[in-house]
Amino acid sequence: MSEVHAARRSRLSDRCAAAGRAAVLVSRPANVRYLAGAAPDGSVLLLGPAEDVLLCSRDPSGDLPPRPAAETAPSERLTEDLRVLVLPSPGEDSAVAAAGLAAAAGAETLAVEEHHLTVARHRAAASAAPGLRLADLGTAVEQQRLIKDEEEIARLRIASEIADQALGELLESILVGRTERHLALELERRLVDHGADGPAFATSVATGPNAGAAGHLPTDRRVEEGDFLNVRLGANYRGYRCELGRTFVIGTSPAGWQIELYELVFAAQRAAREALVPGTAYREVDRAARQILDAAGYGEGLGSSTGHGVGLEIDEDPQLSTEGMGKLDVCVPVAVEPGVHIPGRGGVRIDDTLVVRPEADGGPELLTITTKELLAL
Amino acid sequence: MSEVHAARRSRLSDRCAAAGRAAVLVSRPANVRYLAGAAPDGSVLLLGPAEDVLLCSRDPSGDLPPRPAAETAPSERLTEDLRVLVLPSPGEDSAVAAAGLAAAAGAETLAVEEHHLTVARHRAAASAAPGLRLADLGTAVEQQRLIKDEEEIARLRIASEIADQALGELLESILVGRTERHLALELERRLVDHGADGPAFATSVATGPNAGAAGHLPTDRRVEEGDFLNVRLGANYRGYRCELGRTFVIGTSPAGWQIELYELVFAAQRAAREALVPGTAYREVDRAARQILDAAGYGEGLGSSTGHGVGLEIDEDPQLSTEGMGKLDVCVPVAVEPGVHIPGRGGVRIDDTLVVRPEADGGPELLTITTKELLAL
Repeated sequence: MSEVHAARRSRLSDRCAAAGRAAVLVSRPANVRYLAGAAPDGSVLLLGPAEDVLLCSRDPSGDLPPRPAAETAPSERLTEDLRVLVLPSPGEDSAVAAAGLAAAAGAETLAVEEHHLTVARHRAAASAAPGLRLADLGTAVEQQRLIKDEEEIARLRIASEIADQALGELLESILVGRTERHLALELERRLVDHGADGPAFATSVATGPNAGAAGHLPTDRRVEEGDFLNVRLGANYRGYRCELGRTFVIGTSPAGWQIELYELVFAAQRAAREALVPGTAYREVDRAARQILDAAGYGEGLGSSTGHGVGLEIDEDPQLSTEGMGKLDVCVPVAVEPGVHIPGRGGVRIDDTLVVRPEADGGPELLTITTKELLAL
Repeated sequence: MSEVHAARRSRLSDRCAAAGRAAVLVSRPANVRYLAGAAPDGSVLLLGPAEDVLLCSRDPSGDLPPRPAAETAPSERLTEDLRVLVLPSPGEDSAVAAAGLAAAAGAETLAVEEHHLTVARHRAAASAAPGLRLADLGTAVEQQRLIKDEEEIARLRIASEIADQALGELLESILVGRTERHLALELERRLVDHGADGPAFATSVATGPNAGAAGHLPTDRRVEEGDFLNVRLGANYRGYRCELGRTFVIGTSPAGWQIELYELVFAAQRAAREALVPGTAYREVDRAARQILDAAGYGEGLGSSTGHGVGLEIDEDPQLSTEGMGKLDVCVPVAVEPGVHIPGRGGVRIDDTLVVRPEADGGPELLTITTKELLAL
C-alpha cells in the first residue's frame, strides 16, 4: 500500500502547492490515515515544502488505550518513503511542531484544515512560525477520499461480508427474552470473530416501540412476541466501515400494519438504491426515497438525509440529503437507510451499503446481501 | 439532579460574566453534559445574557447511532429550568445559532472554548454576530469539573464495583488458549451485564510479550502457560468512568523474574497511591512512582505520566506527570497506573482508581478493590 499513499500525497500536493513554497498540514485523523496509512494518536501529516513528514506526539494519555477516534492499523507499517518524527517532548502539539518545521524548510504558506484544527491549536501554530501565512485547506482531502479505488472497495466488501455473517448467525439463535443490550454486544463479538477490527459504529438493536427510532441506543428492554426488531450494525475492516440494517418481526406472522409499513419502507429504500446512477444529484437519491414516505404521511419524521458516503468514516461525503450538493460518481460507496418510526408502536429501517457503478456494468453493486424479505423469527 | 446542573451553571456564569453583558458558549461534549445533564449530538450550551439555552442541531447523521464522543444519558431528562432549542434546519451549526442568539439578547462578548471550537466554526459564529466580541473561555469548565461532589463520586464508586465484578468473573474461567480479543470482548459484555452503560475505554488485554505495553490493543494472540496477562478495563456508569488494571501470571507458579518485576511495579504503584494526600503537587505523585522504576533502570520506557484524573472523561485533569502543574485537592478522583514493559518478554501494569481524601478521614479512598496480590491463574 505504500505507493498508494505516496500517490495520494502527490495528488494532494499537486493540487494545493501551485505556488511553489506552500506546505500542507493535515490533522483530521481519517485524512492522515488516508494519506499516510496510519494515524497514531495526536499525529499530523506535513506535506512539503521539502519532504513529507508524519509528526507524532506522545500523548500525555499514551499509556491508556488509544481513543476510538485516533486509529492505527497495527498491521500496516508506515511507508518507507515517509519520514516519521516522534516529538521529543510529550506535551508538544504536533501541529505546532509541523508549522515550525514548515517555516524552517522555507515554506511561505501553510494550508491547514480549519474545519478540524481548534482555534487554540491554530493560534499556537501561528505563533510558532510568525513568518508563515496560514491558509485554509478546506475539505480537499475529504473530496479526494470521495471516489474509492478497488482496494478500498475490496475492504468495504469484506466489511460487508462480515456484517452479513454476524447478523445471519444472530438470526439463527433464540431472540425472545433477550435484551437489546445483549443482542448488540453479541453482534459486536461476532463481528470481531469474523475478522473485523471492531464495529464500524455503536451497534443499534431496537425492539417493539423502539424499533425504527433514529439514533436508538440499546436498552434493557427484552424482545417480545409481536415486536418489530430493528438491527443496525457494521464492521470496521482495516479502517473501512460499512452499514447494514434490517427489520424483522418476532413471532409466527407479522400483523397487517407491520407488513404495510415494511413494504412502504422497502419501496422507499429500493427507490433510493435504484437512483444510484452515475451523474444523479445527491438530493435526487434522497428525494426518490423521501417522496414515497412523504406521500404516505411519514415525511415529517424523516431526518434531513436518507443516506451518506462510507469509507474510513462511517458518515462521510456525499450526503444523500435535501441539502446535499453534487452528483454521484462511479466508485462512490454509500449507505442508503430510510426509515419510519411511529411513536409508541415502533417502525422499520432498512440500511444497505452499495457502490455506484456504471449502468453498463449492471448498476449499483450491493455489498450487504442479507435478505430484505420481511422475516418472522 | 436538575438543581445540581443549574447550580453548576450559576457558578460558571458568576465566574465569567463579571462584565454584565457577557455570555458563555460551551461546546465540548463532556462540559455540556456536566452543565446541562445531557449533551445530544451537535449540541452547545449558551449561558446568558438572558437565560440559559441548550441548542441542539439535528446532525445530518442523526439517523445513525450517535458517536461515542457525544453521549446522552437516556435516563436523565433535561432540567426543566433549562430551555432546549432544536434548530429548525438540520445543517445549521448550533454554535453559530448560539452566537446569533447571544447577540440578539444584547450580549457584547461571548466567551467560547477555543481549545474545542474549530477555526471554521469560530469564524462562522463571528460572521453570524458581527457586533459580538468573541473571547476565550479557556478551560474554565474543565477546572470546575476537577473536584467532584459526592453524587459524582458515588457514580465512580459504582463504576469501579462493576469493573471489579467483571474482572473477578473472568478470573474464574479458563483462560489458556483464549485470544486477547475474546477476553476483551467478554469483559465488555460483563461490564454491561453488571449495569454499565458501556466500557469507559477500549478494554486492553495483553498477554506474554504484549503484557505491560502502553496502549496495547487486543490481538489474536492466545493465552499461554507462563505468560504475564495484563488486563485494563473500566466501566462507564451514568457518564462516569473508572479504570482498573491488573497483571497475573498464567500457570502454576510465576518465574523469578516475574515475581521481581511485579514487586517492583507494585512498590511504585503503592508509592503513588500513598502520595495521594491533599496539597501534594501532581508531579510529586508521579515522582513517587517514577523514582522507584527509575532506580531499577526502567525510567526510559515510562511515558510522561503515571496517572490522571477520571470523571466524565477517562483522561481528564489533573495530569500526574513530570509536567503537571498544581496540587491535589480533596474529592479529586484519579487513576494511578505505572507500568514496565520489557520488549520481547512482557511486563506489568497495575491501575487503580482512587479519590483524594483528608488524612484525618483515613487517606485516599480506593475504589477498585480487586486484589493486587500476584495471582497465578
